[in-house]
Amino acid sequence: MKSAKFIVIEGLEGAGKSTAIRAVEQSLGNLGISQIQKTREPGGTELAEKLRSLVKEEHPGEVLQDMTELLLMYAARVQLVENIIKPALENDVWVIGDRHDMSSQAYQGGGRQIANETMSLLKQTALGCFRPNLTIYLDIEPKLGLERARGRGELDRIEKMDLGFFERTRQRYLELAKEDDSVFIVDASQSIAQVAESIDKLVTDWVQKTQ
Amino acid sequence: MKSAKFIVIEGLEGAGKSTAIRAVEQSLGNLGISQIQKTREPGGTELAEKLRSLVKEEHPGEVLQDMTELLLMYAARVQLVENIIKPALENDVWVIGDRHDMSSQAYQGGGRQIANETMSLLKQTALGCFRPNLTIYLDIEPKLGLERARGRGELDRIEKMDLGFFERTRQRYLELAKEDDSVFIVDASQSIAQVAESIDKLVTDWVQKTQ
Ligand SMILES: Nc1ncnc2c1ncn2[C@@H]1O[C@H](COP(=O)(O)OP(=O)(O)O)[C@@H](O)[C@H]1O
Ligand SMILES: Nc1ncnc2c1ncn2[C@@H]1O[C@H](COP(=O)(O)OP(=O)(O)O)[C@@H](O)[C@H]1O
Ligand SMILES: [Mg+2]
Ligand SMILES: [Mg+2]
Repeated sequence: MKSAKFIVIEGLEGAGKSTAIRAVEQSLGNLGISQIQKTREPGGTELAEKLRSLVKEEHPGEVLQDMTELLLMYAARVQLVENIIKPALENDVWVIGDRHDMSSQAYQGGGRQIANETMSLLKQTALGCFRPNLTIYLDIEPKLGLERARGRGELDRIEKMDLGFFERTRQRYLELAKEDDSVFIVDASQSIAQVAESIDKLVTDWVQKTQ
Repeated sequence: MKSAKFIVIEGLEGAGKSTAIRAVEQSLGNLGISQIQKTREPGGTELAEKLRSLVKEEHPGEVLQDMTELLLMYAARVQLVENIIKPALENDVWVIGDRHDMSSQAYQGGGRQIANETMSLLKQTALGCFRPNLTIYLDIEPKLGLERARGRGELDRIEKMDLGFFERTRQRYLELAKEDDSVFIVDASQSIAQVAESIDKLVTDWVQKTQ
């Protein structure tokens, strides 16, 4: 019986995704689940990490088109899903993803305002019906998230976008979360301890219900 | 009056595309057209050239998925079309392309056997209605083309595919050429001088008819 699941953490920069992933891992560990593969997007394979750099770098003298950014995100995602995530799940290894497709829907769809129809077509073309079993969306005001992220170091090409971009991205995140039963919203403006507690409760309940 | 055109040379490795492009340039020159931008695909911008390398390199220990290859080809193409080709045409500069979308249709669609519907959806999504004004397809038996290409040096990841791959690619090229009035077939097994003569005649006639 294959029961390994794909759990994804989503949210704006500085929402606390990296921090939350440690909480998820611990909750799974407490439930006796220790075969865990962690992934991040874009990235997670050698080629996908190269694409991550290309997407995050500045390209002086060249406009990185929104459509190009979207295609590169999907190129990286296909590499990760086919080479790492699917094989892990098939080998009964749970996968915790730092971002997945919802990030594209929110950033490229909401933030960059690429048409919904384009977004759906590309998703279907690249991924077919593959999707996470559970997504935890860490909701945060863009300003607060960016302040936290700035504490980590210099901002990359996407992190340097204006506040309007991140507000549209958050809006899309919230819309998607509301229409999808497999997405749970956690208030990421809480303290680290409170967020970890919310996540532990959520993950523990969900795993017990679905096993 | 904007009259600059986008002319594309297509064909298998070693068909003689680079050689043919010099013939096209000369024919245009004889017609008094000297504002010419040459492009190659994948490539032609800094980012697109990086994507070209990623597509042509070997990736030891990682399967480069067919869908990833296709997405990277389109990412590179969007960069080139939006940043170089469209602006050139708008400035009345003619563009001669060493490969364009027909290569994806033939190699990723025909060679790699990605479904026609997927191919059309992606093309429409990435490029909309943008297309070349004239395409010259240099038809050659894969074996002969590969022999010529081998003379140029080591083969890359795609050039190393088996003969069946190139036969499917050629088949798709021929199918596409037959159903599209803007594609002309030139027999590339002829001598360099004969190919150049065929191209000169074709380009001169076409330009005079369309101007
Ligand atoms: N709930 C929180 N309250 C305050 N600071 C937090 C919280 N969660 C994370 N942080 C801090 O904010 C910064 C960004 O968190 P991180 O987990 O790296 O976010 P993300 O991975 O979503 O970009 C880190 O320095 C982290 O310690
Ligand atoms: N018609 C031809 N007959 C014989 N050799 C040719 C012909 N056209 C090109 N070549 C040679 O074959 C090799 C590959 O040609 P090239 O123009 O680089 O092909 P492509 O750009 O289509 O890969 C070159 O060495 C070139 O000189
Ligand atoms: Mg993080
Ligand atoms: Mg060439």
